[in-house]
Amino acid sequence: MNETRPFVPWNMMNDFMIDVFMKYGVPKEDAEICADVLLESDRRGIESHGCNRFKPIYLDRIKNGTLLPVTKMDIVKETETTVVMDANNGMGMVASYHMMQKLIEKAKKYGMAGGTIFNSTHYGIAGYWTTMAQKAGMIGISGTNARPSVAPTFGVEPMMGTNPLTFTMPTDEEFPFNFDCATSIVQNGKIEYYERSGKETPAGLVVTKDGGTMTDSGQILKDMRAGDCALLSIGGLGEATGGYKGYGFTTIVEILSAALAGGPFMKDLSGVDANGNKQMYHLGHFFFVINPEFFMGLDTFEQTAGNILRGLRNSRKAPGEERIYTAGEKEWIAWNERKDKGVPVGESIQKELIALRDEFGLDYRFPFE
Amino acid sequence: MNETRPFVPWNMMNDFMIDVFMKYGVPKEDAEICADVLLESDRRGIESHGCNRFKPIYLDRIKNGTLLPVTKMDIVKETETTVVMDANNGMGMVASYHMMQKLIEKAKKYGMAGGTIFNSTHYGIAGYWTTMAQKAGMIGISGTNARPSVAPTFGVEPMMGTNPLTFTMPTDEEFPFNFDCATSIVQNGKIEYYERSGKETPAGLVVTKDGGTMTDSGQILKDMRAGDCALLSIGGLGEATGGYKGYGFTTIVEILSAALAGGPFMKDLSGVDANGNKQMYHLGHFFFVINPEFFMGLDTFEQTAGNILRGLRNSRKAPGEERIYTAGEKEWIAWNERKDKGVPVGESIQKELIALRDEFGLDYRFPFE
Repeated sequence: MNETRPFVPWNMMNDFMIDVFMKYGVPKEDAEICADVLLESDRRGIESHGCNRFKPIYLDRIKNGTLLPVTKMDIVKETETTVVMDANNGMGMVASYHMMQKLIEKAKKYGMAGGTIFNSTHYGIAGYWTTMAQKAGMIGISGTNARPSVAPTFGVEPMMGTNPLTFTMPTDEEFPFNFDCATSIVQNGKIEYYERSGKETPAGLVVTKDGGTMTDSGQILKDMRAGDCALLSIGGLGEATGGYKGYGFTTIVEILSAALAGGPFMKDLSGVDANGNKQMYHLGHFFFVINPEFFMGLDTFEQTAGNILRGLRNSRKAPGEERIYTAGEKEWIAWNERKDKGVPVGESIQKELIALRDEFGLDYRFPFE
Repeated sequence: MNETRPFVPWNMMNDFMIDVFMKYGVPKEDAEICADVLLESDRRGIESHGCNRFKPIYLDRIKNGTLLPVTKMDIVKETETTVVMDANNGMGMVASYHMMQKLIEKAKKYGMAGGTIFNSTHYGIAGYWTTMAQKAGMIGISGTNARPSVAPTFGVEPMMGTNPLTFTMPTDEEFPFNFDCATSIVQNGKIEYYERSGKETPAGLVVTKDGGTMTDSGQILKDMRAGDCALLSIGGLGEATGGYKGYGFTTIVEILSAALAGGPFMKDLSGVDANGNKQMYHLGHFFFVINPEFFMGLDTFEQTAGNILRGLRNSRKAPGEERIYTAGEKEWIAWNERKDKGVPVGESIQKELIALRDEFGLDYRFPFE
């Protein structure tokens, strides 16, 4: 990859984000969690959910009152294997971190565990939470609802979130099987990234009111906010190429994110009240943890999973293709390319970082200055 | 639907299948399970997995020795929440039925349960097993590996099965949310159905050795057996339209079906040994059951799920579209169209039924005679 953007060292960016989160009222131990979640996205090369979102999705929302910097976590119900948590509109990443710690402990004892959080906010990359399970030698599954932006098959109205359905599983390789993506063809963050980079969105990923498509990234974001266009689930328009299957996966995530807790869903997650005023997002997330030691053991699981993944990579390639990847491999490659350099930041993020530093008079001098 | 095929009453078909399964050596109580699984597929209008498979996928395999009519089920490991079962190449449907009974009992007590079966054979529609959970007021999740027929993104070689990832969830409506389908755009059974009906397979669902596509259904089935073409996962060719996401889902099912039990996978499921002789299929399945009573209760879950599904159906339709469906709705419509008539059978199935009846001198007279 020919990276032309300047890099900020990982430690510097981490410390800076923690300091700024604290200036916004986030307690230190919570700020550490949040900075790590955002940077993990950059470490994996998932630039739609990394430091590009630090200001607009977290800091600005704390400022406008739709995200509370102090996370009051109420355990509404708990059994040997399950947890229901009310995050009281605090930091979704903090609530999710504590949820996963609980579920991993439960799955160590009982083999299986499941949890759901309601009244939450954006929890970062779903793969951070499933990776916590994988690092403990377990299978992690997670999903979350989000602002409505996806239309059902034969529909045109943005009804559901881009709703990731994420699985991370341990293997005997250097990196796990990590399938972390939206059930829509692309997600909001990717279009935000296209817009930020001045790029068009590829055709066919979005449906307009009249059933057509559009490519102007800024216009898509505006039209989506107005409900005048919608993203499509994997499989695309109609049924012939399996669009109803992607739509089904998106719906599964919408149901599991809300129904286990009886929380809000779809249009109630728009972040805007009936009078057009900003309001809390009230997101819901779900988490499942499965412990292979309660089946035939972690070693067996890891070895079999590794053999499957190696078999896939070594299978016959299409003419002109040099490599077959497995889920999580590109993220591992991105990390290896970046680990000694730091996080690459484009111009708009550079400006945000400088403005934040100056706003609070913090003692940082970025490499790009 | 203008159905021109003759119908066989449900009871008659059920009794006939049980009688024939028993003639093939399947014990009565097992034959009852198998007939019900196959007919449930026809009841739902999923004709790729119904009585069309009775002879070729079950009876013929019992005859050629790759499927044992008596199912010896060994519980290799069992905990409060988990089960690992060896089906010893018996009837996958019988093993799955007993597995689900166990898991539902476990989930009643512990909230979550998971199981895996290895050395198994074709288990019918995945949705039969998840529906058992739903009928008990729980969420069912299941998947299975299968004969390799799907290529990874950038690959052309059939490596993985069509690998359904199925979820059935209770709602407050007359019928459940039932998402039961292959993670490939279509599955083998659909192409078998196209071939049986003398129809072409739509373009773009299959990748040939050179990266092109083909539509001759009979040729596709032959070429797939020879490894010369492969099905594609949801999202289609390449990455731009999300093909890697469908490929990811297919891989998740491949891993979960084999790795929890340490069973075989991919090319070892071809049903043919190194010398080209038919051998056991050695399939693996997985099952998870989640009990909403251990979260905020079944009523809450059902009501929220129902509200989500009604909201989707009532959302704005694309110009020219009359209806938005939710997963399981078309199956419910099919059942209502068929329940008083019976199972529709085309000519090739009619011939199979008559030949089986005559082979064993059974006392049945079909309506189409």
